[in-house]
Amino acid sequence: MDQITSMTLDRASREPLSEQLFAAFAARIETGLFPAGARLPTTREVAGALAVNRGSVQAAYRRLRDEGFASTRVGSGTVVRADARRPKRFDASELVSRRASAIPAAAPPPVSAPMIADFSRLTPDERFFPLERFTQTLTEAWSRRPELWQYAPPLGLDELRVEISRRLAESGVTRSPEEILVTSGAQQGLDLVFRTFTDARDPVAMESPSYPGALALARFAGVEIVPMPMTPDGPDVTGLRGRRVKVVYVMPERQNPTGVTATEEKRREILEAAIDAGALVIEDGYEEPESGLTPLAARAPEQVVWLGTLSKDLVPGFRIGWLAAPRPVVERLALVKRTADFQTPLPLQAAIASFLRAGLDREARRARASEVETRRKEMSGARGRHLPDLSWRGGRAARSSG
Amino acid sequence: MDQITSMTLDRASREPLSEQLFAAFAARIETGLFPAGARLPTTREVAGALAVNRGSVQAAYRRLRDEGFASTRVGSGTVVRADARRPKRFDASELVSRRASAIPAAAPPPVSAPMIADFSRLTPDERFFPLERFTQTLTEAWSRRPELWQYAPPLGLDELRVEISRRLAESGVTRSPEEILVTSGAQQGLDLVFRTFTDARDPVAMESPSYPGALALARFAGVEIVPMPMTPDGPDVTGLRGRRVKVVYVMPERQNPTGVTATEEKRREILEAAIDAGALVIEDGYEEPESGLTPLAARAPEQVVWLGTLSKDLVPGFRIGWLAAPRPVVERLALVKRTADFQTPLPLQAAIASFLRAGLDREARRARASEVETRRKEMSGARGRHLPDLSWRGGRAARSSG
Repeated sequence: MDQITSMTLDRASREPLSEQLFAAFAARIETGLFPAGARLPTTREVAGALAVNRGSVQAAYRRLRDEGFASTRVGSGTVVRADARRPKRFDASELVSRRASAIPAAAPPPVSAPMIADFSRLTPDERFFPLERFTQTLTEAWSRRPELWQYAPPLGLDELRVEISRRLAESGVTRSPEEILVTSGAQQGLDLVFRTFTDARDPVAMESPSYPGALALARFAGVEIVPMPMTPDGPDVTGLRGRRVKVVYVMPERQNPTGVTATEEKRREILEAAIDAGALVIEDGYEEPESGLTPLAARAPEQVVWLGTLSKDLVPGFRIGWLAAPRPVVERLALVKRTADFQTPLPLQAAIASFLRAGLDREARRARASEVETRRKEMSGARGRHLPDLSWRGGRAARSSG
Repeated sequence: MDQITSMTLDRASREPLSEQLFAAFAARIETGLFPAGARLPTTREVAGALAVNRGSVQAAYRRLRDEGFASTRVGSGTVVRADARRPKRFDASELVSRRASAIPAAAPPPVSAPMIADFSRLTPDERFFPLERFTQTLTEAWSRRPELWQYAPPLGLDELRVEISRRLAESGVTRSPEEILVTSGAQQGLDLVFRTFTDARDPVAMESPSYPGALALARFAGVEIVPMPMTPDGPDVTGLRGRRVKVVYVMPERQNPTGVTATEEKRREILEAAIDAGALVIEDGYEEPESGLTPLAARAPEQVVWLGTLSKDLVPGFRIGWLAAPRPVVERLALVKRTADFQTPLPLQAAIASFLRAGLDREARRARASEVETRRKEMSGARGRHLPDLSWRGGRAARSSG
């Protein structure tokens, strides 16, 4: 009877009490609070407990029977039907937020025609990952360090940020460990940027086409996308002229999906346009750029955030990335990161710090690069011989997803 | 000179060209595009390149000198000053989003009075974590499994979801592995709920007081908080009566921070109120509840999302949590999770699945529980002897943070 006395009826409402009673019972049956086979209290009991007219209760019970929620059994009174849950009234999909509804659904799986060679995979081949050496490094990193299992320093593990700082310095990007935030992959890094620096309808400039993972985040954030159409030299930034923009997201090195590397002149144009638009620039880059061109983050350190990851070069399973930016920007990002998930697992951070310190990432990457180049030449030759009419776009390598 | 020709001047603007030129040069100096010591082009060169009156350029350069951006050196022309960056014009804090600004800043560190005993720590003691056995389990779990280093199944690793499903079943919550989403800790789980089911200003009911990590997420999401004041029996839900609410977030077992466990009657009231309000209920619980009372998720499975974690019982460093809910709810949450960070690291998921399968978590928890009980009794006795006037609130244990 507790389940009855806690029903709230609005006696001032224009909705008849019998309707309100029906809705209250139906909701309790649907959610399993009155399970299948349970006996409902008698109409007299309900009327007494809630101080309502018994006729209203009888009308509500009649409708419960009519709509398949309950049935009357001789000797048992009114009983919840086993199949009563079918006519659902609680539908969580009606509660879904507008922002979540804006995320593009997953691409449908391709029609499963017999596949001879799959060129759609943009992930590194894990066979070039030195699993045994890594596991060994990791066991060493973890042994006798129980502090790795506790809550973490806000920016991530010191020893990992020291290694990242060193890697960045080699490509000309000067960031101290205190200007680096460890993230759970570059995808989270970019999500943190959107959450920290944009509200719905804020203008954000992105290359067109851009990386689908970044576009999904932009739609989720509800920002206005200012497109920068890709040319063979890099993005065309004329759309930014004369307007304020909050964030400019670019991939100057092997842009995804076009494979274009922005020229020296384009890099200057991007920065000029971003500076005039008052925007924070997010550079999604490579620490060992093929082109040898200076990254944006080395040209305008005050205004550029470097978005880095191990996923593109090594293996995606780590989920370790980083944001390198001026200290006030990093502090803002760190507060949002802490709110979102506290920290990226410290044991993984420790293992990866050891891995980077030993230079194993670079070794693995070079071994793979030479294999990939062999394969590319082989495929290019085979294509020329067997598919002479097929056209081919992109550079030496299409940029893999972050 | 490329840096000059790409400057955009608005000749129709009421802002004098000299002002526009000054702003464009100042911004380039501040962001490091014109580094300290760089020679600026002559006023004649600028006037020619941009087709402007030379007097405007001279006025702009004069102001650059006046405001400390540049100085004139005999033989070198106008040169960027080494200390030119000090008068900042690009200020990233002006770009911070309204939503990120709503996150409460970190609590200030306590005044560092000499501390005799620290009772503020709400994290499990890592000395009870069987580090060696775990590292061993983990090496076994990882060996010869390169697929763990790639992108993951959308809900998380199958073998871990099977273990979680089994654990939940033991406390009466029936969820198949396909109704479970692995998250990077319970904090991310709750963030995903807010992002999937709320937009700014949506009503969300929370216990008052509630867990600070949950309150930070609510402020970040910009929702309207409908408070449910805590009583010694559990939350008072009268504030929900007669209104629609999107999400009800509760901790029926050892509520944080009050330590209150909701009574049988309160649990029914919470569900009734949530059902009438049309809200999705988020139950932040324990898989081995001390009270032995039935969790909400076992009472109204269609409407309750179970938020679980290993952080409270074992160690926080894992960052492994889970959401268990009806399949349509899990699918929505999984899409948002994928957009936010793709996946929780698979190697950790595999290691923890082995750990749970071997029952090591339960062993570690029991060993610690007995030690904690010994300490509690000791402290309680000492308090009675030495601090007889100190009052004491909370139950056997204050609920630790998730």
